[in-house]
Amino acid sequence: MIPRYSRPEMTAIWSQETKFRIWFEIEAHACDALAELGVIPKEAAKTIWEKGGAATFDVARIDEIERETKHDVIAFLTHLAEFVGPEARFVHQGMTSSDVLDTCLNVQLVRATDILLNDMDALLAALKRRAFEHKDTVTIGRSHGIHAEPTTFGVKLAFAYAEFERCRQRLEAARAEVATCAISGAVGSFANIDPRVEEHVAKAMGLAVEPVSTQVIPRDRHAMYFATLGVVASSIERLATEIRHLQRTEVLEAEEYFSPGQKGSSAMPHKRNPVLTENLTGLARMVRAYAMPAMENVALWHERDISHSSVERYIGPDATITLDFALARLTGVVDKLLVYPERMSGNMDRLGGLVHSQRILLALTQAGLSREDSYRLVQRNAMKVWNSYQTSGSADVDFLEELLKDPEVTAALSPETIREKFDLGYHTKHADTIFTRVFGSADAPTAG
Amino acid sequence: MIPRYSRPEMTAIWSQETKFRIWFEIEAHACDALAELGVIPKEAAKTIWEKGGAATFDVARIDEIERETKHDVIAFLTHLAEFVGPEARFVHQGMTSSDVLDTCLNVQLVRATDILLNDMDALLAALKRRAFEHKDTVTIGRSHGIHAEPTTFGVKLAFAYAEFERCRQRLEAARAEVATCAISGAVGSFANIDPRVEEHVAKAMGLAVEPVSTQVIPRDRHAMYFATLGVVASSIERLATEIRHLQRTEVLEAEEYFSPGQKGSSAMPHKRNPVLTENLTGLARMVRAYAMPAMENVALWHERDISHSSVERYIGPDATITLDFALARLTGVVDKLLVYPERMSGNMDRLGGLVHSQRILLALTQAGLSREDSYRLVQRNAMKVWNSYQTSGSADVDFLEELLKDPEVTAALSPETIREKFDLGYHTKHADTIFTRVFGSADAPTAG
Amino acid sequence: MIPRYSRPEMTAIWSQETKFRIWFEIEAHACDALAELGVIPKEAAKTIWEKGGAATFDVARIDEIERETKHDVIAFLTHLAEFVGPEARFVHQGMTSSDVLDTCLNVQLVRATDILLNDMDALLAALKRRAFEHKDTVTIGRSHGIHAEPTTFGVKLAFAYAEFERCRQRLEAARAEVATCAISGAVGSFANIDPRVEEHVAKAMGLAVEPVSTQVIPRDRHAMYFATLGVVASSIERLATEIRHLQRTEVLEAEEYFSPGQKGSSAMPHKRNPVLTENLTGLARMVRAYAMPAMENVALWHERDISHSSVERYIGPDATITLDFALARLTGVVDKLLVYPERMSGNMDRLGGLVHSQRILLALTQAGLSREDSYRLVQRNAMKVWNSYQTSGSADVDFLEELLKDPEVTAALSPETIREKFDLGYHTKHADTIFTRVFGSADAPTAG
Amino acid sequence: MIPRYSRPEMTAIWSQETKFRIWFEIEAHACDALAELGVIPKEAAKTIWEKGGAATFDVARIDEIERETKHDVIAFLTHLAEFVGPEARFVHQGMTSSDVLDTCLNVQLVRATDILLNDMDALLAALKRRAFEHKDTVTIGRSHGIHAEPTTFGVKLAFAYAEFERCRQRLEAARAEVATCAISGAVGSFANIDPRVEEHVAKAMGLAVEPVSTQVIPRDRHAMYFATLGVVASSIERLATEIRHLQRTEVLEAEEYFSPGQKGSSAMPHKRNPVLTENLTGLARMVRAYAMPAMENVALWHERDISHSSVERYIGPDATITLDFALARLTGVVDKLLVYPERMSGNMDRLGGLVHSQRILLALTQAGLSREDSYRLVQRNAMKVWNSYQTSGSADVDFLEELLKDPEVTAALSPETIREKFDLGYHTKHADTIFTRVFGSADAPTAG
Repeated sequence: MIPRYSRPEMTAIWSQETKFRIWFEIEAHACDALAELGVIPKEAAKTIWEKGGAATFDVARIDEIERETKHDVIAFLTHLAEFVGPEARFVHQGMTSSDVLDTCLNVQLVRATDILLNDMDALLAALKRRAFEHKDTVTIGRSHGIHAEPTTFGVKLAFAYAEFERCRQRLEAARAEVATCAISGAVGSFANIDPRVEEHVAKAMGLAVEPVSTQVIPRDRHAMYFATLGVVASSIERLATEIRHLQRTEVLEAEEYFSPGQKGSSAMPHKRNPVLTENLTGLARMVRAYAMPAMENVALWHERDISHSSVERYIGPDATITLDFALARLTGVVDKLLVYPERMSGNMDRLGGLVHSQRILLALTQAGLSREDSYRLVQRNAMKVWNSYQTSGSADVDFLEELLKDPEVTAALSPETIREKFDLGYHTKHADTIFTRVFGSADAPTAG
Repeated sequence: MIPRYSRPEMTAIWSQETKFRIWFEIEAHACDALAELGVIPKEAAKTIWEKGGAATFDVARIDEIERETKHDVIAFLTHLAEFVGPEARFVHQGMTSSDVLDTCLNVQLVRATDILLNDMDALLAALKRRAFEHKDTVTIGRSHGIHAEPTTFGVKLAFAYAEFERCRQRLEAARAEVATCAISGAVGSFANIDPRVEEHVAKAMGLAVEPVSTQVIPRDRHAMYFATLGVVASSIERLATEIRHLQRTEVLEAEEYFSPGQKGSSAMPHKRNPVLTENLTGLARMVRAYAMPAMENVALWHERDISHSSVERYIGPDATITLDFALARLTGVVDKLLVYPERMSGNMDRLGGLVHSQRILLALTQAGLSREDSYRLVQRNAMKVWNSYQTSGSADVDFLEELLKDPEVTAALSPETIREKFDLGYHTKHADTIFTRVFGSADAPTAG
Repeated sequence: MIPRYSRPEMTAIWSQETKFRIWFEIEAHACDALAELGVIPKEAAKTIWEKGGAATFDVARIDEIERETKHDVIAFLTHLAEFVGPEARFVHQGMTSSDVLDTCLNVQLVRATDILLNDMDALLAALKRRAFEHKDTVTIGRSHGIHAEPTTFGVKLAFAYAEFERCRQRLEAARAEVATCAISGAVGSFANIDPRVEEHVAKAMGLAVEPVSTQVIPRDRHAMYFATLGVVASSIERLATEIRHLQRTEVLEAEEYFSPGQKGSSAMPHKRNPVLTENLTGLARMVRAYAMPAMENVALWHERDISHSSVERYIGPDATITLDFALARLTGVVDKLLVYPERMSGNMDRLGGLVHSQRILLALTQAGLSREDSYRLVQRNAMKVWNSYQTSGSADVDFLEELLKDPEVTAALSPETIREKFDLGYHTKHADTIFTRVFGSADAPTAG
Repeated sequence: MIPRYSRPEMTAIWSQETKFRIWFEIEAHACDALAELGVIPKEAAKTIWEKGGAATFDVARIDEIERETKHDVIAFLTHLAEFVGPEARFVHQGMTSSDVLDTCLNVQLVRATDILLNDMDALLAALKRRAFEHKDTVTIGRSHGIHAEPTTFGVKLAFAYAEFERCRQRLEAARAEVATCAISGAVGSFANIDPRVEEHVAKAMGLAVEPVSTQVIPRDRHAMYFATLGVVASSIERLATEIRHLQRTEVLEAEEYFSPGQKGSSAMPHKRNPVLTENLTGLARMVRAYAMPAMENVALWHERDISHSSVERYIGPDATITLDFALARLTGVVDKLLVYPERMSGNMDRLGGLVHSQRILLALTQAGLSREDSYRLVQRNAMKVWNSYQTSGSADVDFLEELLKDPEVTAALSPETIREKFDLGYHTKHADTIFTRVFGSADAPTAG
């Protein structure tokens, strides 16, 4: 857990205080069920809830007891008894430590995922808002970093929206993976505890019953969980990389926000670095890396070994806290992203209209010229433009004008037809189709 | 692709022949849609289906053309034209190579997943059969490799069944992730092709429409796909590891099958190695490793770069072929696993009944002894047994007899009560509960 | 950084206090060089050393300044000026923040490696001591978890010693990888600072000059560093896994140490779990996982981007602190490992001498029997032993006795010859050879 | 092994033919040693070399035998006997299959590494040649993708050279890691074979003796080997990424080579994609991924299990073949890279001289102005330039001219002084220093 990449709400889930509170709830709910089953007195369960519920657990005190007993759950129960009194002997009956530990971990992961889902909603909202804002902002689409055909900046953001909507669904599936409870005893046999206790605790904690556990909740669930976080992180990296590219000096079609104050203070106005998205790229590497030990954790020996535990002490907090931070940071970046439509069209224009060469080629062919002749005509004009661009970085020669001056071309195509092929609207005519697919409608949502 | 870890049906999906056949189908379906839209003649679409459908594509010939054109899709289209004739000029109109390549990859992954799902069904069937066979076969549950409490071998297999049923659901979700089609042009703008073509091809190929693509189908889908395979592989490793442990010389509660012939030929009868499950452990490492480059593939630059392509040439075949082989091998191992119930009870007995010490401790406490006294009594008898075990590996001292001889113990508990605490049924009484949870019923399925 | 897996000396390297102290040293040494070159007054350099050297930097104060300036190095320099006074304006002249940050990171990694090397020496010493202690302690060698041929427990430990000695050499190479210093300015061009400053600082900080840097020290160095830690962690996992196996209930040839107190308090004497080595297995997974983002950090954009920084905030401390803890824990485990030679020979004996079947087979062949006949004779006797073992887990039938009773066997081999083939010394005769290779001598070192 | 990413020399190392040939050599050298020791007749060893050396092993035949015997080494030995005749019974005496298999793997890895080292030499030669060619070609250094300060293109290449020289050293260390031989028997005890046989075979095969093996050669060696390949691959990714950036449409400072023919045939001259370096990026992901299973292979159980074997069947060939291909491809890219110095200076110029703002700021301060005033003056002129750039992508306003027109600036600095601050030579003055560090001399090597 790196403080600068941690937000308080998520961090709190992984605090000792929260952990002990969840332990208490699991134990107390189990007491309710045991009381209902007549295993312990109902009055005891009531007392446990009252006194334990009112208690403020002292982490330092529990640590102190643990140093003696070398057992964390026993240390907690001992401390709990200091509040509850003699009734404390009814706590934890027939249970094994892992019943508490594993169920607690899953409660923490579920709560963490709820925060991540909220984060995702905020990101999706920002993406949607900016996507509609720029639905018709024409920009060049690039394959291999090279100008390809025009698209719109809104479509770029719609693409990201669709990707994160998938990520949201994956997070929900991941939440369901780990939303289980096990109160099944030393090897999962329920020898010492009635399965109805598990059912009660599961329901009370908002979890499903783990159909079959073996002291531990099976770790394929957690492997799937952390692998999913890794995929989400990779999508963050994708959008972050896109923005880093757009902010490059030579491209400069968008920039991470900087306050007027920041701007005003600089004697190097060109040096506005995409540090937030670079940071997100690094954070994505970390979250992704955690998938691997989570997968290695699956193959525990027989009914359990404890090799998974140290791994989870790292990646439980680190993966969720980092991803929470990254999603929030990305949301801020998207929300306030400075977008420069003039630079988008400017960058396209610097190639002197070459982006339309394919349409002219097609038009010539359709006008009846052979493929070879069409190629030759397009090429001899295109090369003039390109040579100019390649020399200076901004074409002084205009492809349209060259074509209009070429008698062989105008013999095949009328000037009107040629001009028509330079219409950018040709490329953006399906932005609405795409928006309807992604957002359900191409109409801008009303503010709300 | 390692021949010895490859099965023909899965391997065939990744052959050049299959790839070109899928390419043809995509192109031909697109022609149907283009014809329906009036872009190309209906007669042309018909001819393409007829002549292309009847053609046997010549991989060597396509390779030869590719060496000239340096473009795989153009090479294919050129070869296709050799069968189709002049109508071939209507093929691929308005499409971009990636429309064909990416949709084809997804068709291959979907088909591969269908095989994996069949594999999984076979594995689940084997696990279920063996689980019911051993529902009541008592065996020691082990935590940390150390004897804990009894469970049944059937419950162990039910645990595996539940895990692979989750894996099956994950595979289905992974299949849905990649079951999409994109026919959207150079940057996904549909500038040169009507979105209805994509809808038609998608439906015809059994895929969903990719809501928004950018020349490429977004790679977060494939990252999720390969991450899922990695999790499935990790579950294979878990079960393989369990079996490897059970086959250890000192444990020997189960063994990978060996034919009587194999057995008969050996002068070293003890040397039957769990080579299949060791092999599965290694294969799991490979499949898991492929998740990482799949995640790194997500952050393509802008509308696409081609860095993902080489990665997918490796992991597309390697991950699916290896996992197919591994699932089939594991199914065989489970199906024919030699199980030794006598050794299971024998291993438990070697500890002279120590497994029941906890129950005796509890009984003494419940009989009114202080926790300290109860401990002292259990301990002084347990240590005799343990010392015997630790010295020889098989206790000569019996815990039950020692207890019955200890007057302080018998003062608190009657011999009947003590004996009752040694009942293994206490530990296995919920096997039916667990089976009902996992299989829907604790009654053995009738053969079918 | 997980407190329970952290040791103070290593943790201190990564504290803010240490970091600022290193920053100061880098800056002050640079001032010396600048003064020597006549760029700043010599008196200034002296003052900076005196006042800065005596200062206790206030982390909270620096954080406060950083919140304003949004720049960590500027915040530090501002704070430094509070101690140094007007001379502070001579600090950092011509330098860029990365000069300080990257050189500091490398100083920290070098110091961390020095601790790891010390850890390794302690581990090697423990392994050597125990290896010689058990040089002649015969134990069964196992391939595939199955009894193979005898070896000695000392040879097992010698194997581990050789492996960790290789790890030590790798750590030294890794240390050299990151022991470089860069003071080269904004893009590494030395435009604003004389290369002699870098040379001076490097020497003063115990580093080599980075031949060519680009604002940052190239990250292939750090990739190699963290990959090496991952390999070391994997070797830890190997030895930990060996011990976990040996401690299994059915094997019990060695155990992690437990104090008599621990032992005395338990009513379940069989339940001594190898929790330390299981923990090491998990820690190894983490350290290994950090290699991957370190490798992804290599491909920074152009002269630098900052994506590596967040990764290193995690893995710099986490990998070194965890490995330090793991090495120390493993040393403790080895040092105090309980070894049970009787159980080693007991486990071997449980197979009734089958381990010698290969030697008998060879002897029969050499005595002139055909391969088929030799096989048949060995097999019919071996199977009796094996059947007995397989049924009960401890052979009641003795291979030697069976052979001696078999007239066809004794017709070929004299009883003396047969008995001779059961000599364990045959298998351990080269323990000294191996020890000489590994330790330079087979003679136990004198205590010292 | 993907044919399109495989080169014949490296691929041949991993062929069955090569493998069997190495097996033969190992066996035959062992026979020599056994003959020397008097274990087998000298004449037999001679016959084995003569007849086996002349034999052409039939892979299909060996496969056929393996299908019966289910054992690869036995199948080979059986086939060998078909050539050698009765003397074949002296082959493999006292050896275990792993002696042959593991030593063979290491021979293959050593040979593979020799090819990789040659590849690296070719890459280094290309980098050196191009570096000297462009030692003084000024280009903008970029941090965060944003213009920072000038450097030279030669320095960029010198940086890559230094990085790959480190990689070369790492490869040499990796080669030494795996250049070991083990002929030590079933558990490495030399029970059935004299250690001198191992010494002889090691020397004959160009390997060192493995000090202590346990049927297998320890896999920490191979983990280190494959981790090293992963680091080398990451350095390839770095340079590939640099080139991909430089080829972006808006930057276009360098391009992968395209033949005039390629160029001439295109009607879309702007669409020259950096497909080779994108491909290298993907290949790097694969090679890196193989490090992880190699590390997981280290923790084999006891004296060995066979889980590593399947992993190595994949990554042995795949990692080395892919890296060989990638190094060769990168060498070709570097060797023929099209470099556009005009575009390098053009891109710098588009910012209207803003790159010099820092130097002006410093000059003003040194001329006695307060920091605040200096900032204000630089900023008000810089912002004019920047606003022009940001609007159009190419500044119409020149920073130098603005400064010269600003009376407050010229009051502090003479025009000559101001102009002097715009000297690019200031930034490149240490190119020779850097070249001397990297190449030993700043003088261009004479052609040779």
